[in-house]
Amino acid sequence: MNSEFELIDLFKNIGSEYYKDNGIIISPGDDCAVFKSNKPIVTSIDASVEGVHFPKNANPSDIAYRSIAVALSDIAAMACRPLAFSLSVTVPHNEHDWFESFLEGTKKISDEYRISLIGGDLTSGPLNINVVVYGSPFSEKILTRSGAKPGDIICISAQVGKASKGLKDWKNNIDSSFIDSYLRPKAKIELGKEISLIANACIDTSDGLLADLKKMLNASRCGADVYIDDIPITSDINDLNAGDDYDLCFTLPEEMVCDNFIKIGIVKEDKKINLCSNKGYDIDIKGYEHY
Amino acid sequence: MNSEFELIDLFKNIGSEYYKDNGIIISPGDDCAVFKSNKPIVTSIDASVEGVHFPKNANPSDIAYRSIAVALSDIAAMACRPLAFSLSVTVPHNEHDWFESFLEGTKKISDEYRISLIGGDLTSGPLNINVVVYGSPFSEKILTRSGAKPGDIICISAQVGKASKGLKDWKNNIDSSFIDSYLRPKAKIELGKEISLIANACIDTSDGLLADLKKMLNASRCGADVYIDDIPITSDINDLNAGDDYDLCFTLPEEMVCDNFIKIGIVKEDKKINLCSNKGYDIDIKGYEHY
Repeated sequence: MNSEFELIDLFKNIGSEYYKDNGIIISPGDDCAVFKSNKPIVTSIDASVEGVHFPKNANPSDIAYRSIAVALSDIAAMACRPLAFSLSVTVPHNEHDWFESFLEGTKKISDEYRISLIGGDLTSGPLNINVVVYGSPFSEKILTRSGAKPGDIICISAQVGKASKGLKDWKNNIDSSFIDSYLRPKAKIELGKEISLIANACIDTSDGLLADLKKMLNASRCGADVYIDDIPITSDINDLNAGDDYDLCFTLPEEMVCDNFIKIGIVKEDKKINLCSNKGYDIDIKGYEHY
Repeated sequence: MNSEFELIDLFKNIGSEYYKDNGIIISPGDDCAVFKSNKPIVTSIDASVEGVHFPKNANPSDIAYRSIAVALSDIAAMACRPLAFSLSVTVPHNEHDWFESFLEGTKKISDEYRISLIGGDLTSGPLNINVVVYGSPFSEKILTRSGAKPGDIICISAQVGKASKGLKDWKNNIDSSFIDSYLRPKAKIELGKEISLIANACIDTSDGLLADLKKMLNASRCGADVYIDDIPITSDINDLNAGDDYDLCFTLPEEMVCDNFIKIGIVKEDKKINLCSNKGYDIDIKGYEHY
């Protein structure tokens, strides 16, 4: 058992070796953190709640890793480089082992992405993790959801439904390689960098591929023909609505499409979204809704 | 009853009239918000949990206002100007009236401080409000906790214990002017600006004047003589340990002390903190601890 301040102390130097690279001027421990950047700052906050974003009894190390990874995924979707993160943790207890494990996951991802923990808050209450991420653009261009143009090819980079299968396997105590796709998702920072100058629009797929594609098309005031037979699935066609994959879904002119992108459709001026299948697949667009 | 996306939509234009002044380039609705600043960025996150930071059954408008105000207080303590905020709200229900009231408090404080809401998250779970604030320095100097120098005068700007009395009055259904001190605290941005070039160290008093003063002195590797008879109190001497006042406590050279500052002590090289009283007051330093 530890006091609040002893627990906060455990986290104080995470990513301190990257302060200089990331422009951190004043490190955690003051009323605010301070950083400097000549480029615009991108920022996002993501809440992860027990029973919604991670299962009850998940390992604290996985909870930390996953909560931070999903926030970093938003930075990837804007074609930006992550610099720093803040962590607000509400926990009902002060068990040292829990915090040690949570710390381990936090350190792991801090080193993987070379990002600095610059602030946070620790409060007592039902388990709730909020992660704020800060980043800056790789190029002069920041990708948004609203830039898709008619004629653009819609792409993803990976098979859908792996995380959803991983969660099922985890719950059923089945040891499978999909579990890491759910518990330890990778933010596709390098992919964001690769497409930063060639893509017109981008979104990360957190709520389900079709739901997120729809959000991007709506923001761009376009529609699309989506070739659902071309989308690699893990379990079945419902994977197109399965959340938690954290891939990037992006649009770009046909001549810019690389071999490692998976082409899944074409942007159309007409705002309808046509789900096209020769295999007779019939699926509606459904996304995760909190209420 | 509303869907998650209808509820998020309610919040989408808060403070949009200040986007330009605050350097907001890409507004809420994308994966990240984007802003630009030639100066360093200061940032902080604060969680507000029901039963800890606000009482059960508090008005949602007050919950919103208070949660944001206490986060802004951290910006004030660094002598910075607030630019923007993000809001992560975990709520167990989707009652429209609750969100309308919460929205009202959010709009009120956005207009009061001319700050823009740039992002957020809405999730289902036990009530938990996380506020991220972003600001930039008024002057070339950013105030920290660690700059206090031996010989500096320690000052505050207001009577202590008003918020604590306000909370008691609110709980006992007593109509008093102190209730607003608790439910609607003011972030002392103007005071931060006023002292930005003359103070050596600053902290906001959220956990109790003595506890926060101790943190500032520890960070500065100094001690102090504190003249507790000189500290204006509201109820009794325990007000010196009462939280939630959100005043600034700062140190500065004697010749810089203005008439409107309340002098409460002097910084000493020796790391001991002496609580001096001629009235025979006997009090220990106690601060709020979550565990």
